[in-house]
Amino acid sequence: MRTVRTVSELRAALNAPRRAQQTIALVPTMGALHDGHRALMRHAATLCDVVVVSLFVNPTQFAPGEDLDAYPRHEPRDAEIAAETGVDLLFAPATAEVYPDGFATTVTVAGELTDVLEGVSRGAEHFAAVTTVVLKLLNIVDPEIAVFGQKDAQQAAVVRRMVRDLDVAVRVEVCPTVRDGDGLALSSRNAYMSESERERALALKRALEAAEREVAGGERDAGHVAACARGEMSRLGVEPEYVELVDPQTMRPLSTLNGEALLALAARVGRTRLIDNTLLRTASSKTDSTPS
Amino acid sequence: MRTVRTVSELRAALNAPRRAQQTIALVPTMGALHDGHRALMRHAATLCDVVVVSLFVNPTQFAPGEDLDAYPRHEPRDAEIAAETGVDLLFAPATAEVYPDGFATTVTVAGELTDVLEGVSRGAEHFAAVTTVVLKLLNIVDPEIAVFGQKDAQQAAVVRRMVRDLDVAVRVEVCPTVRDGDGLALSSRNAYMSESERERALALKRALEAAEREVAGGERDAGHVAACARGEMSRLGVEPEYVELVDPQTMRPLSTLNGEALLALAARVGRTRLIDNTLLRTASSKTDSTPS
Repeated sequence: MRTVRTVSELRAALNAPRRAQQTIALVPTMGALHDGHRALMRHAATLCDVVVVSLFVNPTQFAPGEDLDAYPRHEPRDAEIAAETGVDLLFAPATAEVYPDGFATTVTVAGELTDVLEGVSRGAEHFAAVTTVVLKLLNIVDPEIAVFGQKDAQQAAVVRRMVRDLDVAVRVEVCPTVRDGDGLALSSRNAYMSESERERALALKRALEAAEREVAGGERDAGHVAACARGEMSRLGVEPEYVELVDPQTMRPLSTLNGEALLALAARVGRTRLIDNTLLRTASSKTDSTPS
Repeated sequence: MRTVRTVSELRAALNAPRRAQQTIALVPTMGALHDGHRALMRHAATLCDVVVVSLFVNPTQFAPGEDLDAYPRHEPRDAEIAAETGVDLLFAPATAEVYPDGFATTVTVAGELTDVLEGVSRGAEHFAAVTTVVLKLLNIVDPEIAVFGQKDAQQAAVVRRMVRDLDVAVRVEVCPTVRDGDGLALSSRNAYMSESERERALALKRALEAAEREVAGGERDAGHVAACARGEMSRLGVEPEYVELVDPQTMRPLSTLNGEALLALAARVGRTRLIDNTLLRTASSKTDSTPS
């Protein structure tokens, strides 16, 4: 595996495989790679000949006061993990390579996709920063496939929308969330937590499970399902930041479960902000809109 | 020449030439083609094997109250002109093909490039609409070269910035303004004018010439040069909307001519809004910043 730091190096490295008609996959990451990232890389390798992983802690997607400075950076270890996982190229640019002097362009997905959940909690600029840097990476690598994690479900939906709207010639693949044995969703931010916080963080997964049980038991009222998840979190000592049921494609808030619903939640455990989600599937019916 | 209406048709049509390693040029237009467009197409044909012209009156870049409905549309004639000029593919999509249901993405170049001149007159949304549609066209066609006209100097500078910022792998070419025998810059909007308005519209070119004479005579004060252009327009019965001297790359207002300066102006003649510009070149000196 080769690590490259500039756009021109990366393009040069991709010239030969592209001329040989090899397919290219991109896995965008902020580093601090864990088994969740490994799953994305492995999935990429099953789909394409060449796997490019980008490693860039994108400063613009952190709001003032968020954890930009604290965000874990372990490039040598990340490079080892990527190499072991069959990655061909690690693109680890400096900030000035991504945002040169005079940089002035932003790619924004507006509306219901971004003005809920993380868009409220982290501010409207968060997703604009994500879509801007993702589009840059797509333009630099020009991959056939780009792989994202379902853990950041809203981000994946926003990226899909941006790709469709701007006619980017790439297929977006979204891989399931990878969890520790006890159910905690893997996140680079888990490293911030003490042992007791790590224990308390399980409240997020338990809340999702409580909601899943409600739905399995026949509950279809979104407000009730969310309240149940919220109650479970509080009971386990974690105050929810948001718990919402939304359409998984549009992020539109749901009042009734009917087909697919995304239950998304966020909370702080100590100073660590965590998010998690689960897809709730119920038999789709038309009883809401058409009288039987 | 073939006319295609959908993104997938266009991509399919470009598959064979791309596989054969042929180079592709894109000339984005809003149709109502004239000799200015012909020059862009001819230039594109000298640089690339395949020339694609897009013909799309982009509704989003017209502010409310502007001339979207009146904008001249003559597709059959445009197709003839394009065919005669060696164009291979005419991409003439419907609005719904460019902006499908749920479209939510905008590409914005912020700051000094867009908050002067046309950005003030036509509103901040104007250039965002331009960069959004241009990026879409670049993603759809994936050309080696995209050709724009110097008549829309600010638009060309904004597109260049967007291309650089988003790492779009395309070379932007800008061709000189084409003028009628009497000096009037060609524009699809010239068709709006009566014969007497057409006569009065020469005031724009005369104003640029008056400024050029001032500079040739040694004048280096930007305020004085602009005032001279403004005076000439008024004298010829046209009230300027703006007359400004700016840096041709950054659009930053200039106080002194020193190197390259863009003199850009806009005015209404009757109900027709016209723009024009000229590049003023003076020997670059450092006398402003370093005492001799």
